Parts: sequence; structure tokens; C-alpha cells
Amino acid sequence: MQKQKFIAVIGSGQANASEIKLAEAVGKEIARQKAVLVCGGLGGVMEAACRGAESGGGTTIGILPGDNREAANPHIKIPIVTGLNHARNVIVVKSAQAVIAIGGSYGTLSEIGHALQNNIPVIGLKTWSLVREGKTDSGIISVDDPVNAVDIALNMIEDQPSRR
Amino acid sequence: MQKQKFIAVIGSGQANASEIKLAEAVGKEIARQKAVLVCGGLGGVMEAACRGAESGGGTTIGILPGDNREAANPHIKIPIVTGLNHARNVIVVKSAQAVIAIGGSYGTLSEIGHALQNNIPVIGLKTWSLVREGKTDSGIISVDDPVNAVDIALNMIEDQPSRR
Amino acid sequence: MQKQKFIAVIGSGQANASEIKLAEAVGKEIARQKAVLVCGGLGGVMEAACRGAESGGGTTIGILPGDNREAANPHIKIPIVTGLNHARNVIVVKSAQAVIAIGGSYGTLSEIGHALQNNIPVIGLKTWSLVREGKTDSGIISVDDPVNAVDIALNMIEDQPSRR
Amino acid sequence: MQKQKFIAVIGSGQANASEIKLAEAVGKEIARQKAVLVCGGLGGVMEAACRGAESGGGTTIGILPGDNREAANPHIKIPIVTGLNHARNVIVVKSAQAVIAIGGSYGTLSEIGHALQNNIPVIGLKTWSLVREGKTDSGIISVDDPVNAVDIALNMIEDQPSRR
Repeated sequence: MQKQKFIAVIGSGQANASEIKLAEAVGKEIARQKAVLVCGGLGGVMEAACRGAESGGGTTIGILPGDNREAANPHIKIPIVTGLNHARNVIVVKSAQAVIAIGGSYGTLSEIGHALQNNIPVIGLKTWSLVREGKTDSGIISVDDPVNAVDIALNMIEDQPSRR
Repeated sequence: MQKQKFIAVIGSGQANASEIKLAEAVGKEIARQKAVLVCGGLGGVMEAACRGAESGGGTTIGILPGDNREAANPHIKIPIVTGLNHARNVIVVKSAQAVIAIGGSYGTLSEIGHALQNNIPVIGLKTWSLVREGKTDSGIISVDDPVNAVDIALNMIEDQPSRR
Repeated sequence: MQKQKFIAVIGSGQANASEIKLAEAVGKEIARQKAVLVCGGLGGVMEAACRGAESGGGTTIGILPGDNREAANPHIKIPIVTGLNHARNVIVVKSAQAVIAIGGSYGTLSEIGHALQNNIPVIGLKTWSLVREGKTDSGIISVDDPVNAVDIALNMIEDQPSRR
Repeated sequence: MQKQKFIAVIGSGQANASEIKLAEAVGKEIARQKAVLVCGGLGGVMEAACRGAESGGGTTIGILPGDNREAANPHIKIPIVTGLNHARNVIVVKSAQAVIAIGGSYGTLSEIGHALQNNIPVIGLKTWSLVREGKTDSGIISVDDPVNAVDIALNMIEDQPSRR
């Protein structure tokens, strides 16, 4: 079975209007490109991205922190119940071949760290910038346009056979 | 979105011919009944169940212990990459609303314990029997027929609104 | 630094008087033998074992399921905060070189499965018996006396250089 | 039993000479102040901090990513074996009441994110700076002196009764 490409969308459960709009557009484009959306399964950025993906007929996976599948947002097709609380962040990024970060809570920051530690590319929309010893770290690929973010994610997966 | 019923199939990665046959029949019936199969994503009982489900057009989720989605058996449609090693067993059972155990390794035993601890029903085919202070524990519902196992699992999910 | 031997004591958070008595004696003997006690950090069997170990001047480690170190029983010297819920059971047994199981909840059963899966010896006091295809499984070494349980655990650690 | 204060020291397993020196001084001061050092148990910054703490007679806890306690650096007194790989980062920070970050790998970044998400203070020595929408985030308290870092950590624990 040819496996589909998996893209994680990460961001806060409490998102502002601009982040919600970006997330929905990202989710819609992921579905249009026939990729699978992975996220933390809850509200805010996660829910908006899933709503976009669902509107495009895409598959949505929610890696839930608690013990109850009912906590998933209504657009999650595949709820995964971990009971691991914050440690589930690691699974969100490891299950994806590229990560799109939208906005910037501290939970999102932990996911960016886990992704980069595992050599999984991170594309950022209005998210964190990282500075190390006075120099901007090049780990996060910063873009402005949601469709562009998905294009870059898919191209980076293509270019790295080990991640396909 | 009306969520489908999720059934976990648990069993050893090194299974004998009789267990393989049972697992394949269980997987096939899960797909025929339009439920989703969750498993640990590797070989043996897991792979046989997924092969059965795939032949019936079903959805198969593999909760992988390692860091590499390529370790999934070829019939897994949705690989979830945890990197958690044995702790991923907890996620396999929590993501399901009923569990079917086939054969009996110690890993399977840990999953039976986690399922019963979380009040998730366990149906057993040629698996462990549990004895506590000289009395057989009634936690595992032992059956002989794979189609019957799936029927019982689905009925138990139906009967318990909190698990639907 | 010569590391001490670590023994896990596992059992229900709701224990009866007989289990409490056994657990306290096991904890006391672990301390007398200069080994370290690892447990899940909560009440019942865990608390009784820690009380025994503390009375003997021993070190007690509690691998807690929640996010709050205050949930540890009052005899825990080293609280480890996991936030992993039931998945913390895996860490309790992996951190030990031998496991003593007292009484029999389903959580204890999951820990027995994880220990045997990882080739960590399990000594049982009034705990589960395991039967596979009509035959009693020899995985759990069943004993009646708490001091004897600790002796066997320490001898098994000695005999297996890879576990020291 | 009055519990001791737990401070996590986080940083790369491959550290440079300046980071090693800072880590050793931090570990020594943690021990001098009778606090307990928690870390990821491996080399680099972790090992240097443990060496400092051991020289001061302190207690050192290593939350190990793999399945083998022998992977702990030689200055770890309490090895905790998780088998969780990168997800063990969450346990390192949750088990502490304050975190001192030295240097800056991506794994360290993930731990900073998890700590701040859980409202655990982070004191930084030559580590990441965080910028969100063009503004520096105040989450990391940046200092230059290792003794000062430990003082701030202990004072912040004192000031927040819920963390003691």
C-alpha cells in the first residue's frame, strides 16, 4: 500500500482570528494535495486546520492528551487516545514527515524542538523565531502564505527519501 | 462526523499458524462490519489481522513502538510513530473501545491489564486465563470463533454509551 | 559510583489488611538489605511498602502518574513526576532489576506483563496466576513469605550480571 | 518527610568547554544548597552537572531515554529507566520545580517549551532566546553566572508555595 504523506499542524488551543484563518487554509490545502493532517486533536489552531481539511475531504488524525476520545474536535476522523498529557506532543511530530507551526504557545515551542531534534522540517506561519548566542537559528522556515507553507512541506518530504 | 467504532487486535509479533488464521479472520470481520482496526503495527498477529482488514477494505491503524514509520507492516494505512517502545501498548488499548486478544505473549498480557484497568472489554481467542487467589477472573471473555469475537466486541461497545 | 540494587514493589492502591502487612514487611526488608525501593508512588500496597522501607532507613522512589509531586505518599523520598497516567507503569518496572507483586489489581497485571516482556524477574505474594492454553505459566515466582521474596529478588539480580 | 527541592539541569549531550564548565559549577552549587539535581542522565552538560553535584555530596537523578540503566553517566545515583526516547524530556522537567538550561540543542529547546507550558521557571545560561512576532519572550530568565542561576531557581521555588 502506497502510504500518503503526513503533515502535522501545530499551534495553540486558544488561537486568534488571524491564526484561525491561516490554520483553516493550511488544512484545506493539505487535503487538496491528498496528504493526511496530524494534530493534537483539540481546539484553536488544531480545530481550524481540521475544519479546513474536512471541507476538502481529507483525513484528520488527532493525537489526544487525555483518556477520552470524546475530547477530540468534531472534525477529527481518527482519534488516537494516549492518556500521556504533554508527552503526546512528541507523537504528533514523530508521526508527521513535515510540521507546519502556526502562532506561538509554549506547547508549540516544545513541538518545534522535538521536530527539529528528529530532523523533521518545520515551516512557520507567524510563529516563534529562535535565536542562539545572538544569531537567528535557521531551523524554522518562515513563510507568510498558507498554500506556500504546504507546498514547501510536500517538497521537503519529496526531497528526502528517508521521510517518504 | 459520526465516528466509527475502533477495535484493537492484540497478540504476539511471532504467531503460530493457528493464531495467524484467527487474526486474519478477525481483521476481515472488523472491516466487514465497518469498524476500524487498531494494533501495534508490527508482524505476527498484528500483520495477519491487518491483512484480513485490508482484504475487506477496512481502515488499519498501527501504533508503532519505534521512531520509523517504515517499520509498519505493509497493510497499515495509518502509521502512528510514538518512539515510546513498550509504553505504546497503553495507546493501542486506550484508542480502542474493545480489545480482541489472540494468543499469548507477555506484551499481550500487559495490554490485557491496561485494557481491564481502563474498563475496556477484552475478548480472548486462545489467550491468557487469569487466576486470582485460586479463582478464575472473569475479566477476559473467552470465545473460540473469530466472527463471534467481533460480534461480542461490537455489541459491548453498543451497550456502553460512554464508549461509543 | 557503585549503584544500588533497585526492586519494584507493585500492587493495588486499594489494598486489604493482609496485603498491607506483606507490603510493609517487604519494604522493611528491602531497606535492611540496602536496596532501593521503586513504586508507583501512591497509596495502598505502594504506601505500605514505602512506610516499611522508611522505617528501615531506605530510599524510596515514586514514579507518579499525574502532574503533581504532592500526590506522592508521605514516605516517598524521590518523587518522579511523569504526567503519563497508566503509561508510567512501564517506567516503574523498567527502573527495577526485579519486581515483587503483592495482591492483584489489573494495573498490577499490566506491570507483571511489562516486567516479564522485558525479562525482569517477578516474585509474587498473593498475586495473579497466569494460565496459557491450560498450562500454568512459570513467569511469576510465587512465594508466601515477604523476607523470602526479597531474598529471591536479590539473588536473581546477583545471578544475572546484565541486570546488576 | 520534608521533601528536598528538585532542580533540573538541561543541555546538550555534546557540550563545548564553556558549557561543561558552567554545568559543573551549577551542579556543585545545587549540591551545596542541599537541592537534588534531575537531568536526562547522559553525557555533555548532564554529565558535567552531575560531576559537580557528586563532588559536593549531592543527589543526582538521571531520567534515561533507553531501556538500559548502564547508559547513565557515572555520576548518576538514581537512574530512572523509561524506554520512552525523546518523550522522557517531559519527565525531566516535570520532576523539577525549576529548570536551568545551559547551551542550546533542539532537545533542550523542547524541554524549555515543556517547562514553560507547565509554569515551571527556566533560568538560562548561554542558551536560546525566544522571539515571538518580533518581540523577545520573557519566559527564559537569562543570567551569566552559575551560582546566580541556582540562587534564582531556589528563590523562585520558595516564592511559589504550589511548587515547593
